[in-house]
Amino acid sequence: MTDSIRIPARALQSLAEAVLTALDLPATDARCVAELMVKADLFGADGHGIFRLRRYTDRLRAGGVNPRPNITVQRQEGATALVDGDNGMGHLVMRRCADLAMDLAAQFGIGWVGAHHSNHAGAAILYATMPLERDMIGLYMAVGSANHLPPWGGTEMLLSTNPISVAVPSGHNGPVALDMATTVAAYGKIKTAAQRGESIPEGWMIDKTGKPLTDPKRANEGFLLPVGGPKGYGLALIFGLLAGTLNGAAFGKDVIDFNADASSVTNTGQTIVAISPRMFGDVEHFKSAVDDIFDTMKSSPLLPGFNEIRLPGERAYASLKERTDNGVPIPQALVRDLNALAAECGVAPLP
Amino acid sequence: MTDSIRIPARALQSLAEAVLTALDLPATDARCVAELMVKADLFGADGHGIFRLRRYTDRLRAGGVNPRPNITVQRQEGATALVDGDNGMGHLVMRRCADLAMDLAAQFGIGWVGAHHSNHAGAAILYATMPLERDMIGLYMAVGSANHLPPWGGTEMLLSTNPISVAVPSGHNGPVALDMATTVAAYGKIKTAAQRGESIPEGWMIDKTGKPLTDPKRANEGFLLPVGGPKGYGLALIFGLLAGTLNGAAFGKDVIDFNADASSVTNTGQTIVAISPRMFGDVEHFKSAVDDIFDTMKSSPLLPGFNEIRLPGERAYASLKERTDNGVPIPQALVRDLNALAAECGVAPLP
Repeated sequence: MTDSIRIPARALQSLAEAVLTALDLPATDARCVAELMVKADLFGADGHGIFRLRRYTDRLRAGGVNPRPNITVQRQEGATALVDGDNGMGHLVMRRCADLAMDLAAQFGIGWVGAHHSNHAGAAILYATMPLERDMIGLYMAVGSANHLPPWGGTEMLLSTNPISVAVPSGHNGPVALDMATTVAAYGKIKTAAQRGESIPEGWMIDKTGKPLTDPKRANEGFLLPVGGPKGYGLALIFGLLAGTLNGAAFGKDVIDFNADASSVTNTGQTIVAISPRMFGDVEHFKSAVDDIFDTMKSSPLLPGFNEIRLPGERAYASLKERTDNGVPIPQALVRDLNALAAECGVAPLP
Repeated sequence: MTDSIRIPARALQSLAEAVLTALDLPATDARCVAELMVKADLFGADGHGIFRLRRYTDRLRAGGVNPRPNITVQRQEGATALVDGDNGMGHLVMRRCADLAMDLAAQFGIGWVGAHHSNHAGAAILYATMPLERDMIGLYMAVGSANHLPPWGGTEMLLSTNPISVAVPSGHNGPVALDMATTVAAYGKIKTAAQRGESIPEGWMIDKTGKPLTDPKRANEGFLLPVGGPKGYGLALIFGLLAGTLNGAAFGKDVIDFNADASSVTNTGQTIVAISPRMFGDVEHFKSAVDDIFDTMKSSPLLPGFNEIRLPGERAYASLKERTDNGVPIPQALVRDLNALAAECGVAPLP
């Protein structure tokens, strides 16, 4: 990141908001998407942050995404709901689903809300952590926006990196917030390595004969490996059924590669679940028990070669604090492209 | 398995039921536990089937498990419930929780039921598949009954193999039923290799200096590796928080090794979730869509070295059918021990 410069989150947000408004999003929607995009950068999920603005722009311009969706609750029964995203930006659909899931959880102890006709929504951790706003546990699953993974033992890319994120509130420690793709490496890491001219480690990808693929420029000759072999494949499949098929969203052959195709409706599926610890006992007691588990894990003696135990989400929350204070490191090339995008849209460049 | 003989499931069930009745379980409870134990064998989860009867007997005799629990719904609000297992056999507690989760899901679309003061309940797939009885999706998480896993980068065994199982109904194909430990290998496989005098592959365990441990007789000098490194650790931790801490059950330092300690109350935690696809659309349409995904995965061209694509649960359901027809293969040594146990309890041996 030696060629990066630090840019305040507020400046990135303003640019994204202005660009999205120029692309016909209503002002409040543009602000919501911009905030969530930049929050991904703050969390350290660079591959899901402001970097994606160019692609979102392409898809909005090409008619692949509806800038003014009528997001509706299509079905709501008991503690579950199904939301029709009307092909709007995924961030908007998921913000709506998270709010509904929390409302349901406040009433029923749990809220399970699925969406169809959503779109790429960025980092999973953004949504799993929303229920923390109300001292609830959050769980998010999604069908990824391009297939890079065959079923275990196969060569046809029928699965995406279908991620899961789960966030659990705690007391004095930060939340525990797992966010993981079901592949060994996210596809963004392959693209980054290719841009930098670096090779990738064995174990990330294989070619169509099963041999390790370590040249990321040859990525389209192979595919990602699932985490833990058949187990990761199983998780990707299950999350796809729960976040895609159950919601009437695309999964399997129906998934459109949103990086290759700017104009088709993706019918992306995502699911968010909120769980209220209040239903199981005293919330402060629960958060304190999570703190104890956090501290217990940290206190383990270390293996040679390690200098600390990390809890899931610890790095993301440390990044959130550090980047909020010091700005988000943005590569020079991305700064140039964001300013070009601003110029195209007739809005102010980065300061 | 050359030294195994095939024994009909009914004969194994009768023996387990008689032994458990002799150990003071009420007749209907003994039957329920026996059926679930043998169903684990039928599913091919030999390490969780009739093989465990000796250990359950030890713990019942030593007062570590309550043969006549008063299993109660301690809290029930909306779609969630917390069950006090009263230290009964885990199978009974989870059967009760699964029934309640389905009742809640019928009413609210989803039911999330956690338990504390439960015990080892055998194979996760037994419980995740229960909601299939009512065309529902099932999800089961548990805190394992002994810690074999340190946090990633550590050496203190603070985590168990905390499994997850998810089962999704389908139409003409079998259900999709994932059942996985969050470690590369289940601990039972290590014990089996040690008994057979075999070595274990690199990647299953490491010693306290981080070196591969391949001699299973030295298992107590090392620990299991999580699936996918830090990701498996993250999953084990999250499932522990959701199935243990949230339910007021043991997790972390509090977990008692039920193989080493026969008399202490384990306060085992498990959670079962039922989700009704009815709330999201037509059930038959959903099951047919799951069939399509199943068929699509199976149809992928194969990597060299593979002769088929398997769906999660496919092997378990094939085993269920084959072993129901032909009997369960039981090693001779286990047959002898089961008959010795029967003699100790004054009940009939295997026929």
